[in-house]
Amino acid sequence: MKINGIPTRTIRAIDNGAAVEIIDQTLLPYRFEKRVLSDWRDCVEAISVMRVRGAPLIGVTGAWAVALAVRENPENEPLLKAAETIQNVRPTAVNLQWAVQKMLATLLPREPSLRLEAALKCAAEITQADVETCRAIGEAGAGLISELYSKLRRPVNVLTHCNAGWLATVDYGTALAPIYAAFERGTPLHVWVGETRPRNQGLLTAWELEQQGVPHTIIVDNAGGQLMQHGDVDVVIVGADRITRRGDVANKIGTYLKALAAADNDVPFYVAAPFSTIDWNLNDGKREIPIENRSSDEVLSIRGVDRSGADITVQLASAREAAANPAFDVTHNRFIKGIITERGVFAPTELCLAYQDVIESMQ
Amino acid sequence: MKINGIPTRTIRAIDNGAAVEIIDQTLLPYRFEKRVLSDWRDCVEAISVMRVRGAPLIGVTGAWAVALAVRENPENEPLLKAAETIQNVRPTAVNLQWAVQKMLATLLPREPSLRLEAALKCAAEITQADVETCRAIGEAGAGLISELYSKLRRPVNVLTHCNAGWLATVDYGTALAPIYAAFERGTPLHVWVGETRPRNQGLLTAWELEQQGVPHTIIVDNAGGQLMQHGDVDVVIVGADRITRRGDVANKIGTYLKALAAADNDVPFYVAAPFSTIDWNLNDGKREIPIENRSSDEVLSIRGVDRSGADITVQLASAREAAANPAFDVTHNRFIKGIITERGVFAPTELCLAYQDVIESMQ
Repeated sequence: MKINGIPTRTIRAIDNGAAVEIIDQTLLPYRFEKRVLSDWRDCVEAISVMRVRGAPLIGVTGAWAVALAVRENPENEPLLKAAETIQNVRPTAVNLQWAVQKMLATLLPREPSLRLEAALKCAAEITQADVETCRAIGEAGAGLISELYSKLRRPVNVLTHCNAGWLATVDYGTALAPIYAAFERGTPLHVWVGETRPRNQGLLTAWELEQQGVPHTIIVDNAGGQLMQHGDVDVVIVGADRITRRGDVANKIGTYLKALAAADNDVPFYVAAPFSTIDWNLNDGKREIPIENRSSDEVLSIRGVDRSGADITVQLASAREAAANPAFDVTHNRFIKGIITERGVFAPTELCLAYQDVIESMQ
Repeated sequence: MKINGIPTRTIRAIDNGAAVEIIDQTLLPYRFEKRVLSDWRDCVEAISVMRVRGAPLIGVTGAWAVALAVRENPENEPLLKAAETIQNVRPTAVNLQWAVQKMLATLLPREPSLRLEAALKCAAEITQADVETCRAIGEAGAGLISELYSKLRRPVNVLTHCNAGWLATVDYGTALAPIYAAFERGTPLHVWVGETRPRNQGLLTAWELEQQGVPHTIIVDNAGGQLMQHGDVDVVIVGADRITRRGDVANKIGTYLKALAAADNDVPFYVAAPFSTIDWNLNDGKREIPIENRSSDEVLSIRGVDRSGADITVQLASAREAAANPAFDVTHNRFIKGIITERGVFAPTELCLAYQDVIESMQ
């Protein structure tokens, strides 16, 4: 997608794969700066502090981290050790595990001396596959928005939470991909963007939508229900960090509350995610998906810009206060109308019908 | 209640009623500063920018504003004009209308020359009645928490939203009154405090609880559902800005989402409010209660303290961004287990059974 008019991806290999260049998302929406990661440990740090974020982009960054680890030392022991560290930086998004495991499955059968070339090829494939997957998610979901427009004959109001956009993937996004695709086709639409405390990734969504010229309005997370009660939301589309085989969805904290409000007001609630987000080993999301607890600092402080335009972190409450900070919640499949994937839109419980087919194609 | 160990009320008349002294709540929790309002227009400004806030305290401030208007000019025309302005500063909380109307009902039958004395007396009575009402709400609700403790035999986890505490009333609070009363009786408890964007009144709640030594933890508004899903919330208690006769409740934006999550997880959801919050003229809250829309600045910027300890407002998103800011939402009576009032705890639809009795006693 275009940033300041220039087609840009959120991550790319540079120097023949000796490093990757990312956008430092902790500086957005205040500053757009790129950052070079030339050591797998830099990738781990970038994932941990959320310079890169969003389940698909975390996965892709994890793949490149493995490639950098191979460059450092392609032998089994150091490679497996690095892979384990990489895979466990963040526990909820399954895409990270998926990408690291895919890399290892490609590398381990090979001689160490042949691994670097294979790693670069595999990481590049995972990167490109993410682009194509997201484009396909956009195509699959755009129809839902156009159909609503055909019915309503006025701009379709889409509510989203967090950032499951271009920034959360290599290109296009997941939840935002159908919005971009529909917008490009000329479907009149407007997006409600929840700010998504504590880290306000909604502001990344607003920045992205602004770059693409998509009409949108920012709201606090508390306001979603009120808008739905008054008919101001026609459809909710969010991303996912992990989906169980029965279609329960872990996503950014607060998603569950939006799903409840959507159900109470008959607003269709969709999740957009690639198949790599599905964890076929899990069934009951609430019991089985591990939820990351992050630092209380994220709740007790916030980043913004002061009058001079400099970005600054301010303390909201005394650092003596206790704060709890679960980063994700789980939405039960009964609240989800459909899961928009690169293979089409499925009812949550229908995902597993595609199981065999998918397992084969993913191998 | 005690602030820094000194018994303090949130509003008091000074100079024989020639002015009122309030706590400037826009400076909390960073600075505890009092402010003198000696003109009814100052009271209007204080209510408008939320130096005083919380439905009961807005009502009491409105009563004192009418008394100051009488002091300026006790004749019908200027008095009614001032009263209309005062009554309409904020549209959702019915207590403001109630207090202004109560003042007028007392004043208008009297000769202008006798109105000042009557106004001071009536405003003082409304003030004192609020204290007694809140104490009674505390007594009525404390039992609910003690009963939960008897069953659970571990600290009771109460979740609250916004600030319906001492600061929102003259003393004790509404939603926090049962918590303070139970805590004083020695019932082990812990409070989850939602920060309540956009204005973060939850931080006022945390500050209040800290002053009284009540164990508590701050969370972002998005986290309430996740806590309820995992059994970490035993009861929800919130305040109200207006209650219809069938028991629908308008309260701070986001309350409805907590109510939905409570219902989905079988967590009892209570509203604590005085009878003066009930609008007997309205029935269907969602359709009939007017919802205030506040400035987009409240969403796009936030107040905190910088490293030097100075308080500062920072911009979260570009001021070019559009933001919507509905300040309240309505929770349908079916999600509410009980309404804790100064006359006991009622199921929402039982409020009207007390109608005749109450109308008589309020006249």
